[in-house]
Amino acid sequence: MDDKAIVIGGGVGPMAGVALHALIIENTLTDGKDQGHFDVQHFSRSADIPDRTAFLTGSDARNPAEGMARTFRCAWAALSACGKQGVGAVPCNTFHAPAIFDPFLRILEREGIRIPVLHLLDETMRFIDEAYPGLRRIGVLSTSGTRKTGIYRDLLAANGRELVELPEERQADLQDAIYNPEWGAKAVCPVSARSRELMAELTGLLAACGAEAVILGCTELPLGLPGKSLNGILLINPVLALARALVREADPCKLKAL
Amino acid sequence: MDDKAIVIGGGVGPMAGVALHALIIENTLTDGKDQGHFDVQHFSRSADIPDRTAFLTGSDARNPAEGMARTFRCAWAALSACGKQGVGAVPCNTFHAPAIFDPFLRILEREGIRIPVLHLLDETMRFIDEAYPGLRRIGVLSTSGTRKTGIYRDLLAANGRELVELPEERQADLQDAIYNPEWGAKAVCPVSARSRELMAELTGLLAACGAEAVILGCTELPLGLPGKSLNGILLINPVLALARALVREADPCKLKAL
Repeated sequence: MDDKAIVIGGGVGPMAGVALHALIIENTLTDGKDQGHFDVQHFSRSADIPDRTAFLTGSDARNPAEGMARTFRCAWAALSACGKQGVGAVPCNTFHAPAIFDPFLRILEREGIRIPVLHLLDETMRFIDEAYPGLRRIGVLSTSGTRKTGIYRDLLAANGRELVELPEERQADLQDAIYNPEWGAKAVCPVSARSRELMAELTGLLAACGAEAVILGCTELPLGLPGKSLNGILLINPVLALARALVREADPCKLKAL
Repeated sequence: MDDKAIVIGGGVGPMAGVALHALIIENTLTDGKDQGHFDVQHFSRSADIPDRTAFLTGSDARNPAEGMARTFRCAWAALSACGKQGVGAVPCNTFHAPAIFDPFLRILEREGIRIPVLHLLDETMRFIDEAYPGLRRIGVLSTSGTRKTGIYRDLLAANGRELVELPEERQADLQDAIYNPEWGAKAVCPVSARSRELMAELTGLLAACGAEAVILGCTELPLGLPGKSLNGILLINPVLALARALVREADPCKLKAL
């Protein structure tokens, strides 16, 4: 058992962590037996991690970095108890805004928590390079927090690609599809028809604006749009990119072909 | 945060742990926000836990109790690191055979790992009593290991109910639907059509033999038969019973109505 354990810093939202966990299993090559699967340690400590968008837009001063660092402290204790090295990830796009992700990494370093953490958005860019190198104009659906940071725009530009985003006046609808307390994707599992229809409409709108593919840049979105495409529009799921990256880092021999 | 953390002793098989995790989330009453969900710590250490049926049928001498106890040692370290009490469960029917479950509990006690562990089959009986008290003749599909122990027969009899099981000559087919290394439910996710069709046929056979409902008594079975019923036959999912029991023990105020 020289392979690494995979640590999921979950709970953001909780069902996105479950989706990542399932994709790790689905992308692992085994001999068909339970025993060929990775050691996955999945911590879903939602109550300790304030909303990421609320922090980025200034309506909550508490940085979610701190609660997630406490989650990784638990993971570090568990890894130490079973004598394993680990590789970790956080399945939340908005968490990767530098105002959150950078202090998070600094806390881990300061506390001696030696779990390397993959970067969800960097891995998504790598996935696009490998699987769809010809794409030039790429749509992104994301929370208002992620949008505000411009992180997808910068990463795509650095990769020679162009971002297509929603008209400003439709962003509130997307935020509602994710956050509405009655019918949003964070509130209802499985995702409600109303939320799914809105996600689908906004995906179509990005394609109509010239996007050749659409990145589902909030981990609740693939819960509502689980397919690889929608009405002929290619969907790129960052959680799938992350699952495959975690398998690659834990033991590259066990990564299934795409 | 006085509620308890929920510990999943997963990996047996790994996708059954994911199914339990998802059902915990789906059965938790929240205000629609991530932060209302439980602290779930899910350890999937498949490689360290030998096959349960192989142990019970004598083809592997290693008791899976020991690896699962090491899993709970990791959980205990993680809970200690975040100062939480926990309540745990193992989503594998076969693991609850007394020859495995009893030594498992003894190791936890000896090592001072103070995480109470719910019993999957006891919780399934409680679920039937609460949700379907009128049932008298109940079919059970299970691994050959679980079947050999007679544990479902004894529990149903103690509850004034009668077990309907497969004709002996069809048990190998059910074992194959779960374990076949090419197309069985442990080998292929999502579950293959061949495995699903066999599960459905055997469910129908139990109904034809007089079962008023069928317990999917191996945690791979609900992955292939996810509905509440099949061709009018009521399906009872022990993993759902367990998810609801964990929520009840962690904080009864947060248990959704059925």
